[in-house]
Amino acid sequence: MMRIDLNSDLGEGFGPWEMGDDAAMLDVVTSANIACGGHAGDPETMFATLRLAAERGVTIGAHPGYADPIGFGRRVIPMSPPEISRMVAAQIGTLAGVAGLAGARVRYVKPHGALGNLAADDRAVAEAILTAVPKGMAVLAISGTELERAARAAGIEVCSEIFADRAYLPNGRLAPRACPGAVLHDADEAAERLIGFLETGLMPVIGGEPIPLAAQSICVHGDSPGALHMAQAIRARLQAAGVSLAPFLT
Amino acid sequence: MMRIDLNSDLGEGFGPWEMGDDAAMLDVVTSANIACGGHAGDPETMFATLRLAAERGVTIGAHPGYADPIGFGRRVIPMSPPEISRMVAAQIGTLAGVAGLAGARVRYVKPHGALGNLAADDRAVAEAILTAVPKGMAVLAISGTELERAARAAGIEVCSEIFADRAYLPNGRLAPRACPGAVLHDADEAAERLIGFLETGLMPVIGGEPIPLAAQSICVHGDSPGALHMAQAIRARLQAAGVSLAPFLT
Amino acid sequence: MMRIDLNSDLGEGFGPWEMGDDAAMLDVVTSANIACGGHAGDPETMFATLRLAAERGVTIGAHPGYADPIGFGRRVIPMSPPEISRMVAAQIGTLAGVAGLAGARVRYVKPHGALGNLAADDRAVAEAILTAVPKGMAVLAISGTELERAARAAGIEVCSEIFADRAYLPNGRLAPRACPGAVLHDADEAAERLIGFLETGLMPVIGGEPIPLAAQSICVHGDSPGALHMAQAIRARLQAAGVSLAPFLT
Amino acid sequence: MMRIDLNSDLGEGFGPWEMGDDAAMLDVVTSANIACGGHAGDPETMFATLRLAAERGVTIGAHPGYADPIGFGRRVIPMSPPEISRMVAAQIGTLAGVAGLAGARVRYVKPHGALGNLAADDRAVAEAILTAVPKGMAVLAISGTELERAARAAGIEVCSEIFADRAYLPNGRLAPRACPGAVLHDADEAAERLIGFLETGLMPVIGGEPIPLAAQSICVHGDSPGALHMAQAIRARLQAAGVSLAPFLT
Repeated sequence: MMRIDLNSDLGEGFGPWEMGDDAAMLDVVTSANIACGGHAGDPETMFATLRLAAERGVTIGAHPGYADPIGFGRRVIPMSPPEISRMVAAQIGTLAGVAGLAGARVRYVKPHGALGNLAADDRAVAEAILTAVPKGMAVLAISGTELERAARAAGIEVCSEIFADRAYLPNGRLAPRACPGAVLHDADEAAERLIGFLETGLMPVIGGEPIPLAAQSICVHGDSPGALHMAQAIRARLQAAGVSLAPFLT
Repeated sequence: MMRIDLNSDLGEGFGPWEMGDDAAMLDVVTSANIACGGHAGDPETMFATLRLAAERGVTIGAHPGYADPIGFGRRVIPMSPPEISRMVAAQIGTLAGVAGLAGARVRYVKPHGALGNLAADDRAVAEAILTAVPKGMAVLAISGTELERAARAAGIEVCSEIFADRAYLPNGRLAPRACPGAVLHDADEAAERLIGFLETGLMPVIGGEPIPLAAQSICVHGDSPGALHMAQAIRARLQAAGVSLAPFLT
Repeated sequence: MMRIDLNSDLGEGFGPWEMGDDAAMLDVVTSANIACGGHAGDPETMFATLRLAAERGVTIGAHPGYADPIGFGRRVIPMSPPEISRMVAAQIGTLAGVAGLAGARVRYVKPHGALGNLAADDRAVAEAILTAVPKGMAVLAISGTELERAARAAGIEVCSEIFADRAYLPNGRLAPRACPGAVLHDADEAAERLIGFLETGLMPVIGGEPIPLAAQSICVHGDSPGALHMAQAIRARLQAAGVSLAPFLT
Repeated sequence: MMRIDLNSDLGEGFGPWEMGDDAAMLDVVTSANIACGGHAGDPETMFATLRLAAERGVTIGAHPGYADPIGFGRRVIPMSPPEISRMVAAQIGTLAGVAGLAGARVRYVKPHGALGNLAADDRAVAEAILTAVPKGMAVLAISGTELERAARAAGIEVCSEIFADRAYLPNGRLAPRACPGAVLHDADEAAERLIGFLETGLMPVIGGEPIPLAAQSICVHGDSPGALHMAQAIRARLQAAGVSLAPFLT
C-alpha cells in the first residue's frame, strides 16, 4: 500500500496577527512544522498550535528560521555557522519549552525559508543546523539537498520531502518560481502527479524524462484560502487513490 | 561549618550591548541566573555566559522576565497567569536549548525583576511561573514570598535567597528602596551582617529586633564596577570568616 | 445639511501580516488613523497605506500606541508621562517621515488602544500626548474625555468622535463591552441611531434619556470581514439619508 | 586658518544598555550622528542625546541603519532600494519627531554601518538613501564614495568625511581592517597625520604617494574608553596646532 506523510508550515501567526487557518490545515497534514518565535510565532501562538496538533495526533516539528519577523525569515541574515547553530538551538528549545507545557513533544526539525534554502546548498549551514538538533530528534529536509546528505552523514534520522505544488528539474531540484510551469495551481493536476510518483517512484520534470526522487513526505501550504483548498483537495485525492497518509515518524 | 550559595543575575547583555562583567562575577558566585531572551539575552550572549559558567562549575539557572528588553523586565506587562506560564516556559526552553549546545544544563528557575516582584506577592502569578518549571528543576525564590510558599506547596525544590545589600523589615520583607538605610553600600558592613546572620540565623531589621530568616543563598549584583567590587569583597570576607561557598543544588 | 467625518484605524499590518482590508476601508472613511510602528505598522505598511489614503483624498492622522506589537497596544505599559511624550513624538515623526516620501501629510493625532483609553481618563497622560503633537496638527479624541478637554485647554484643534457600534451611558461614556447591548452588531440599527443623532444632536443611552454629545467624527472598524461590511453599510445609509461625509479637517 | 568638523556616532544605547560615553564625546565633536531606533536608539536615548547635543551647540544629524539591533546595523539585510528609502525615511522622521520635542533640529543624514558601506559602493543604494533625505537636510558621506557623488549629482549639500584612525589606499578608499597598518591606535600619530593633511590637502596612503582627498569633517569614535581618550587627544592636538573646530553646517 502506498504511504506518505503530509507536512505544512504552521503556527506562523505573531501576536494579534494570523497567518492561514491552522486548525483547518491540522485536519489535512500528518506532520506540522511549527514556527519557534524566529520568523514568526510567539508563546501564545505556539501553545495554541501545539495543543491543536497534539489533539489531532499530528506529529510536531520545530520550524526555526532567521530571527527576522518583518522579513518572515525570507531574507538571508548574514551569520556565521556557529551563530546559526546557537540561533537554531535557541528556537528549538523555545518550542520544546512551550510543548512541555502543552503536553506535546517536538520530534523533528525543518529549517524555514531563507535558512532552509541556504541549508539546501551550503554544507556548512546544513551542518550548523544539524549541530543544533537535539539527540533523538529527526530532520525534515528537501529531497536532494545538502541538508539531507549532511543529516545522513551525521547519522541523524532524515525524512525527504517533495512539494505538492512545485515542478522539478532534471537534476532533481525545484524549478525556480520565475520558470513557466514552476508552480502548479490546479489541485487535480498536482494530485495526479503525486499519485503517479507514489506508484512509480518517478517524478515528471521540466525539460526531461521523469526522475527518481526520495520522498517520505509531501509539503503542502495553507497560508491563503486558495492554498488551503488545494491542500484539502490533494489530501482527498490521495486518500481516494488508496494512499495511506501517516506521519513519517512513528 | 557555615555554608551558603552566592547567586547573581548574569547574561544580561543584548546583541552588541553588555551589562556588567559576567566573567568576573562568575568567579564570585556559585549559582548564575542567566537571562533567557525575555528582558535581556540573545543566543550569542546566552551561549557565551553558559560556557563561562560551565567552565567554572557554576550552577546554572534560568532567569525569565517580561519580554520587554527596552524596560529590562522592570515594568509589569499586563498578562493573565496562563500567558505568564507560556512566556516563562518559552524562555526556560530557550535557555535550555542553548545550554544543550553549550554542554551545560539548566538546573533551576528564578523570575526576574517585575515578574519576580509580582510572584513574591501574588499567589496566582507564583503558581503560573511554577506551572512552567520543568520537572526536575528547582526554584530560587526571595525568602518569605508567595513564590517560596507556592513552590513548597507544589513539592518543587526551592532555595530561599536573601540580598547582600538590602535591609529588612520586622515582617521579613525587604525595606523599600526609598526608606533610609534600605540599601547597604559598604561591603564590610554588608559582610558583617551576613556573617552574623549565618552564625545566629537572625537578621537585623529596621525598626525592630533581629528576626529569623530562611536562606540558602545570598543574591549579589555585578551590573556596575561598584557592585562588582562589593560582590568580590563580600565573597572574600565570607571566606575569611570560614563560610563555605557552594551551590545550593548539588 | 448634516455633515460628519468617518474615521478608522488603518495600516495595522506588520511585516508579512495583514490586519483588515485597508484598501476597502479607504473607500469608506474620510479620515485614516494610521499606525506608526508602535503597536503595529512598519515602513512598508505605512508607505502603502499612506499612498492609498493620499490617492483617495482621505485625510491622514497618526495613530500612536504603546510600542508593544505582541499586545497590539492593548496593554498598559507602565511609563511616566515624559516617557509617553517621547514615545508618541517618535511615532508621529516616524509616520511623518514616511509620509514625506509618499507625498502625503500627517494632519492629526489619535492615540490607540490602551494609550487612548488611559488618555480618556488620566489628564497627565492626555497632556503628555498633547506635548508630543507638533504645532499645526490636530487631535482626534473620544467625545467627553480628558484628552478632548486637555486639547481644548491647550488651544489645540480637536475633533470629537463617537463610535458607530458602541452604546453610551447617561454620563456620556461608552458602555463597557461586558454590558448587555454595549456593542451594536446590526448595521441598520447602528445607522439609524447615528442618523437620529445627527438630526437631533441627542444620542440614545442605556438606562436613561438621550443625551447631547459633541461629535464631528464617527469611528468605524474594518479589522474583520463583518466589520468591513458594517462600515460599508453605515456609509451607504448615511449617504442615502443625505448626510455629507467629509474630513473633519479641511 | 585651518578649519574642520569633528563628527561621531552617538546615541547608540538601547533601553537599559549604554554604548560609549555620549556626554564626554559631545564635548569633543562639533557634529553628532544620532541613532534613530534602527540599529540602536530608543525614544529615551534619542531624547537624552539630542538634549545634550543641543545644550552644547553640537550640530545634529540622523544616523539611520538597518533595523537590526542584534546585529547593530553591521549586517546587510537584503532590501530593495525602495524598501531602503522607506526605512531611512521612517528613521529620519523618528529622530526628527523626538528632536522637535527636545527643542532640537536634525540638519543632516549619515548612513550607519553596513548601510553606509553599501552606499559607498552601490549607486542604487546611495540614491535610495538620498530619496529619503528631506529637503533642506544635508548628507555626511565618506570621502570618495558613490554616496558623495550621488548627493552632488542630486544637488544635495554634502560634507565629505575622513577617518581619524584609518589608513587610506592610493585610490582614496579605506585600507581594509585586515591590512597591516589599516587602523591607527596612537593618538599622536593620528593627529600628526590629520594636521599634515589639513596643511597640505594631501593624505599619506599605504603603498603610494600622498593623495588629495576632499574632507570637511573627521570621524572619531567613542565607543570604548580607549576610543574616547584618542578622540579627546586628537581634538586637543588639532586645537594646539591652530585648527578651528566647527560644524560643517553653519
